[in-house]
Amino acid sequence: MTCKELSNAVVKALYDKKQKVSTAESCTGGLLSAYITSNSGSSNVFEYGIIAYANCVKKEELGVLANSLDKFGAVSEAVALEMAKGVRKKAGSDFGVAVTGVAGPLGGTTQKPVGTVYIAVDAESGVACELLSLGEECEYDREKIREETVRRALIMLKNKIASA
Amino acid sequence: MTCKELSNAVVKALYDKKQKVSTAESCTGGLLSAYITSNSGSSNVFEYGIIAYANCVKKEELGVLANSLDKFGAVSEAVALEMAKGVRKKAGSDFGVAVTGVAGPLGGTTQKPVGTVYIAVDAESGVACELLSLGEECEYDREKIREETVRRALIMLKNKIASA
Repeated sequence: MTCKELSNAVVKALYDKKQKVSTAESCTGGLLSAYITSNSGSSNVFEYGIIAYANCVKKEELGVLANSLDKFGAVSEAVALEMAKGVRKKAGSDFGVAVTGVAGPLGGTTQKPVGTVYIAVDAESGVACELLSLGEECEYDREKIREETVRRALIMLKNKIASA
Repeated sequence: MTCKELSNAVVKALYDKKQKVSTAESCTGGLLSAYITSNSGSSNVFEYGIIAYANCVKKEELGVLANSLDKFGAVSEAVALEMAKGVRKKAGSDFGVAVTGVAGPLGGTTQKPVGTVYIAVDAESGVACELLSLGEECEYDREKIREETVRRALIMLKNKIASA
């Protein structure tokens, strides 16, 4: 399924269950929210999203711990989890989705090469996190990495809604 | 110029001037931020964006006045201006861009039909606001209205940066 199809399925599923989602995006920079809100009626299921590009925004707006950023870096499981929990709490939504990664072409390291992405989805039933290594698959292309990240985030969210 | 070309020009202009922009989006739902951050190196000029779909988010996160929402509605010059000023202040950025409108297909009224959009750009030099009526031009198509809104917002921002 494409991002558009998945986002449509997510909005429908949330609408049917009378549930809401909020988003906290770093490397996707608004693209995940843009797909969700591309669907008519999305205002019933989506009220708040934040693009937390800077670390200070992750801390101040989402409650990400300075210690997590210092110890693990912005692109880490710890930070993704805290972003997802933080945005869900702040928005008072049923689901919180967070994305943090290296979209490139700059910013890659040996440990975290371009295409390294963490996606976290938080819900009352618990939080899930996935590590993606999209570099090769997406030919280290910034736009392809962002698009595939959104696709995988929407799949995670869709599954979480179905199992909640 | 396309949205992609304009966003690239905006990021370059901000980078050259060592300035930053923040965004507050309602009807575009993240699409403006997604275009800005589609450019490599955008993290130097963009740190914070908010998707303020719900009125409570506009009030609580951006300082939009309850009175403005009650008196003029969410899609109004007053609210667009307050969103732009609010996000610029919150982010501590040089420029704040805000978008609020009726992307459709639902939500249109006689006074504010589908395609009615307000874009505001706030800077130290002052704030500017434009009212767009994109319905006919965009064939009342949600995606076309959102894309054209982003294009016009980027043009306004580009001009503001050039004249600042």
